[in-house]
Amino acid sequence: MDTERPAPSTAGVGVLKELYGPIHADIDRVEALLRAELRSENPFLASLVSHSQKFQGKRMRSAMLLYSARLCGGVTDLHVALAGVVELLHSATLVHDDVLDEAQLRRQVDTLNRRWGNETSVLFGDYLFAKAFILCSRLNHHEANRILGRTAQDMCEGELSQIATKFDPDIDEERYLRIIELKTARLFSTACRLGSLGWESDPAQIEALSSYGLNFGIAFQIIDDVLDITGEEAEVGKSLGTDLSKGKLTLPVIRLLRNLSGSDGQELRALIASSDNLPEKRTRILGLIRQGDIVAACLRRAGEFLDAARRALRPLGDSPETAALLELGSFALHRRA
Amino acid sequence: MDTERPAPSTAGVGVLKELYGPIHADIDRVEALLRAELRSENPFLASLVSHSQKFQGKRMRSAMLLYSARLCGGVTDLHVALAGVVELLHSATLVHDDVLDEAQLRRQVDTLNRRWGNETSVLFGDYLFAKAFILCSRLNHHEANRILGRTAQDMCEGELSQIATKFDPDIDEERYLRIIELKTARLFSTACRLGSLGWESDPAQIEALSSYGLNFGIAFQIIDDVLDITGEEAEVGKSLGTDLSKGKLTLPVIRLLRNLSGSDGQELRALIASSDNLPEKRTRILGLIRQGDIVAACLRRAGEFLDAARRALRPLGDSPETAALLELGSFALHRRA
Repeated sequence: MDTERPAPSTAGVGVLKELYGPIHADIDRVEALLRAELRSENPFLASLVSHSQKFQGKRMRSAMLLYSARLCGGVTDLHVALAGVVELLHSATLVHDDVLDEAQLRRQVDTLNRRWGNETSVLFGDYLFAKAFILCSRLNHHEANRILGRTAQDMCEGELSQIATKFDPDIDEERYLRIIELKTARLFSTACRLGSLGWESDPAQIEALSSYGLNFGIAFQIIDDVLDITGEEAEVGKSLGTDLSKGKLTLPVIRLLRNLSGSDGQELRALIASSDNLPEKRTRILGLIRQGDIVAACLRRAGEFLDAARRALRPLGDSPETAALLELGSFALHRRA
Repeated sequence: MDTERPAPSTAGVGVLKELYGPIHADIDRVEALLRAELRSENPFLASLVSHSQKFQGKRMRSAMLLYSARLCGGVTDLHVALAGVVELLHSATLVHDDVLDEAQLRRQVDTLNRRWGNETSVLFGDYLFAKAFILCSRLNHHEANRILGRTAQDMCEGELSQIATKFDPDIDEERYLRIIELKTARLFSTACRLGSLGWESDPAQIEALSSYGLNFGIAFQIIDDVLDITGEEAEVGKSLGTDLSKGKLTLPVIRLLRNLSGSDGQELRALIASSDNLPEKRTRILGLIRQGDIVAACLRRAGEFLDAARRALRPLGDSPETAALLELGSFALHRRA
């Protein structure tokens, strides 16, 4: 049974259309490749693929890869395929994330786990991972395989490290940043780096692009974590407040812990360490976070990483491509969905 | 908290020691490689790896790959690494299978999901998958990558097809065989085929080895499905009866459905299609299966596939290697654990 939902939000699409102008045809090639790769004769698989395409994302990782490729020499078939691998890997992790978070909505559409249950979703995530592996292997590009394999490992390690710190009030900002670097930022960084493959790029240029992607990715995840607390479900288009309920301690909570001292701090630490009464706990902590300067401080912290991303690009000079990458950063900071 | 369990069963180890004699040193190299690949500085990951090594299997897929390599020309570093990839892929699927089956025991040891929960297990399975990808990519062997990627996809597709037929009394033997071919037999077949890589093998020899692996794998899964119904938990070393509770219709149930006609058949079909009262349903159906000739008939069916596996090897002539592969088949048929 399909649960009727409002049509997906189109907020930001206008900005993106403009932003993606120069790479529009290449993004279309990535989409066509993904459709071809995921075509299946198996009707059950075909329906899973078709549903998952409803919450197709903004293809930001593809956009970064393609703009990076243009900066390094141009977009070739290799880059279109690599963007496809990155998107498949990203999709696989989203499907598994939704199972782990027991999320009900993604982009205002029922998650796969809500619609078909956890078994199907775990296996479909594995299937997407296998598809990424197959597409990547077919390129017969040793370095691409090595980079993408390592990135997939880092993403899992980041997620596992996050689990290891659940309900742990001793988590500090450094540890949090390391976790989001692995679980989120590494794939953005990899996307930028893959854009340089096939071209005789200057190592400094590759490093600049990777650093841009990494810093962008950290900012992106901080904003995502803030939106989980401040966002409106209808606007963000996915289940909110799951981090706290699941014991995931993100930057706003870490900042709150740092701000409160004495008996208030002790009480908060005990509350965070407990996995009882989750709804009340969540309401209480969200209230504390929302009433102070914490949200603004977290957004400023994200802004610092976006500044670092901008600085990383500076040596590459001014061009429509660097301008587009910078614009993607602003888009990420101001997104509400 | 560790739950104390009896020491793992050593049944079959004697037979295997003898069977693995000629490849013993190579199996040790595979083990050393896996330990090196899975070494982690991350203490949480290290504890997951360490626990998962407690239910380390019989390395049957490695044994097949190594014996196949000996038949084709000899065991090289490539084959040791490929055996490592196959074992990592197999381990990844076991970790996810235990989540999906809500299994509590594997080889008489707590499953990862029992010990650390589903989140950790899903991510650790993904991590093992990424490790398989990395090891495979490092070999820089285009054909190995292609074969293994395709095999991973087939395994997921088989599992998903099984979910699509849950609680469906219309499933027939042909469909069941197709599912177990994909989810289980394909990896055995792939292991045998990978043994030929790096050697100028006769296509007929590769085909013979692949066919042996495929038929062996089908027999192996039929026996596994029978053991889920007839086995004793203490002996088999894992949670039993989960197939029926989960709605997975395996050969014994399919045969029972075929045998019962008229109102008995109608009643059984209704019972199977229902996901209510699972414990009572399970007891009732298990009773019906155990009282007839069904278990023996299923084992005969497994025997037919083992015969086909034997016939496939015949063109390769008699050698210690073909003898060992045949012996693995007998071991699989008579295993109780």
